[in-house]
Amino acid sequence: MTRSPSGKEDWALPMRRALALAEMAVGLTEPNPRVGCVLVSADGQWIGEGHTQAAGSAHAEVMALRDAQAKGHSVEGATAYVTLEPCSHYGRTPPCCDALIAAKVARVVVAAGDPNPQVNGRGVERMRAAGIDVMAADGDAEAASRELNIGFFSRMQRGRPWIRLKAAASLDGRTALENGVSQWITGESARHDGHAWRKRASALMTGSGTVLADNPRLDVRGHPIARQPLRIVLDSCLQTPPDAQLLRVGGPVLFVASRPEPSREAALRDLGADVLTQPSSEGRIDLPALMDELGRRGINEIHVEAGARLNASLLQHDLVDELLVYLAPMLLGPGRGIAALSPLHELSGVRRFSFHGAQTVGEDVRLILRRQA
Amino acid sequence: MTRSPSGKEDWALPMRRALALAEMAVGLTEPNPRVGCVLVSADGQWIGEGHTQAAGSAHAEVMALRDAQAKGHSVEGATAYVTLEPCSHYGRTPPCCDALIAAKVARVVVAAGDPNPQVNGRGVERMRAAGIDVMAADGDAEAASRELNIGFFSRMQRGRPWIRLKAAASLDGRTALENGVSQWITGESARHDGHAWRKRASALMTGSGTVLADNPRLDVRGHPIARQPLRIVLDSCLQTPPDAQLLRVGGPVLFVASRPEPSREAALRDLGADVLTQPSSEGRIDLPALMDELGRRGINEIHVEAGARLNASLLQHDLVDELLVYLAPMLLGPGRGIAALSPLHELSGVRRFSFHGAQTVGEDVRLILRRQA
Repeated sequence: MTRSPSGKEDWALPMRRALALAEMAVGLTEPNPRVGCVLVSADGQWIGEGHTQAAGSAHAEVMALRDAQAKGHSVEGATAYVTLEPCSHYGRTPPCCDALIAAKVARVVVAAGDPNPQVNGRGVERMRAAGIDVMAADGDAEAASRELNIGFFSRMQRGRPWIRLKAAASLDGRTALENGVSQWITGESARHDGHAWRKRASALMTGSGTVLADNPRLDVRGHPIARQPLRIVLDSCLQTPPDAQLLRVGGPVLFVASRPEPSREAALRDLGADVLTQPSSEGRIDLPALMDELGRRGINEIHVEAGARLNASLLQHDLVDELLVYLAPMLLGPGRGIAALSPLHELSGVRRFSFHGAQTVGEDVRLILRRQA
Repeated sequence: MTRSPSGKEDWALPMRRALALAEMAVGLTEPNPRVGCVLVSADGQWIGEGHTQAAGSAHAEVMALRDAQAKGHSVEGATAYVTLEPCSHYGRTPPCCDALIAAKVARVVVAAGDPNPQVNGRGVERMRAAGIDVMAADGDAEAASRELNIGFFSRMQRGRPWIRLKAAASLDGRTALENGVSQWITGESARHDGHAWRKRASALMTGSGTVLADNPRLDVRGHPIARQPLRIVLDSCLQTPPDAQLLRVGGPVLFVASRPEPSREAALRDLGADVLTQPSSEGRIDLPALMDELGRRGINEIHVEAGARLNASLLQHDLVDELLVYLAPMLLGPGRGIAALSPLHELSGVRRFSFHGAQTVGEDVRLILRRQA
């Protein structure tokens, strides 16, 4: 793809709108990516727009074509701004590039290529073969589209979900006092922000220790959402009691055990939960294999809110792609830590992350770190 | 003082320059404040500028008047932009407001009032009585001038220095591994930035534990500086050995003991150090009384780089005005903490700070927190 010769001004605004539309698809399209599309007529009118709907329903391009049609606009000769390469394969819906070709658009500007091995350039090729002028947007638009679909890219390119580990702690890294008191170290704004991150996840993950100690709902609250993420509980011996809150509130739940526990499994299934047994050779849950299995099940992004032990296991298996840490403006001294890691004797072997963002959220600070490649 | 009626544009640029000049005085003027001055002629020419020199030498206003004179400009009818109210009293130099009156400036724009009880509005009154039009700059300029002189304001208004506690830790609040290894958790950029904060301090403070364990120089490196800050070692029993590095590099050192140790004291004095005995009723160093004494000695800002015990003592005495914390993008698990605080049983009694800044510095993040009033 060549870059637009006439400079950024041409396409920056409609592409920004397409990215905003894609963002509206968060929490709606799993396991499909979040995509937005804006149609601009040859004479510069914005004639249609749309974003991907729930899986099995229309994609962004088709929504935008329908929108233009509903408003009585002809799409012939128009430019389509799409945040992700239009699909070229039959999934649960027909290929979007065929819809654009049939509608006789003249030009398609694409923010990011589709990492799906079934697409990956073929959408562009097919449109070019039909005489459509296909161009890439700039690096900023590409980065924004990839960020929005970071889990989808992870699943397509690595076969496993993007794993984000969330923690809320004091400035000195305490998630709770020694006696377990943790309500509230961080403030209301940080908790609300945390739920926005939960919303964009395909699945929320915790451990049975947290379920037994805190009895969380583990759902998205305070943000409108079309469907709750899957809740995943790592529960080696299936100790979660049937009256656990997360079994009482609506939405799917998956328990992961390290060995067969037929009667407990049956009890959980009776309550509508799913159970997966994923043993490692040491008799624990095989975390890397679990992540691959969750990738196969279409899980793009996993948001982990767990205790220090599960956090440490994920870190020690090098499975954490991103840390989302809220720090409160206080020092607590003795207390519980973010991750129960084994003592180190030297700093050379430490797994380093990179800061990807630091900003205040209400009275707290939010830090985002990414795993160094 | 009334605000300039003709709006911000008039005075924003020369005042910004005056603030930049005041910043050049950092590390030079102790115990005097950092002040800058710009002179603009009636026809809008920038005719002179200057900043406060070392104590006993000329202040900003006199430097600017001399600068204009040296360049052959008349100051009559000019406007002086000064970042702090011109002094009205005889210190080691004559009052600056008299110099401005004698030079026949027409107008003086002041960023912040001088908190010195010997000035505090009298400089403005005296200039007004002499027919000079005195105006206040805006809140941004006032805030910038106060920030630059936060320690001077603290000493003038509270009788004690502004205390900044610096720490460098991992994301989970570890300043060292359990075995003491701490080189290097944070990176080169954070260390260089830390030395800029050392430079603006009147005194650098540590405890004898850090001196015995790490044998630091405790000086400013990597930034040009006219004079090294006073180094203060809290050393109850005067255990610092005579070959300690901080006694070998140039610059003043003050030891603070909790009881008379005549022979050790004599040995330290022989090496050029000063010794102060400041016992509390419990036989420890009386930290609040020490800070008052340091205020009396003209110490504006104290930069603390100490171990977890001294940090905890300062925090528990509620003496820490600011936390300057560098966090490295890694989780270390078990290790040494920022402050060896006593365990808490509930969160309601926690001393809360407020975030005053969060930004990346090299590969690390720098957080600034201020004590909540």
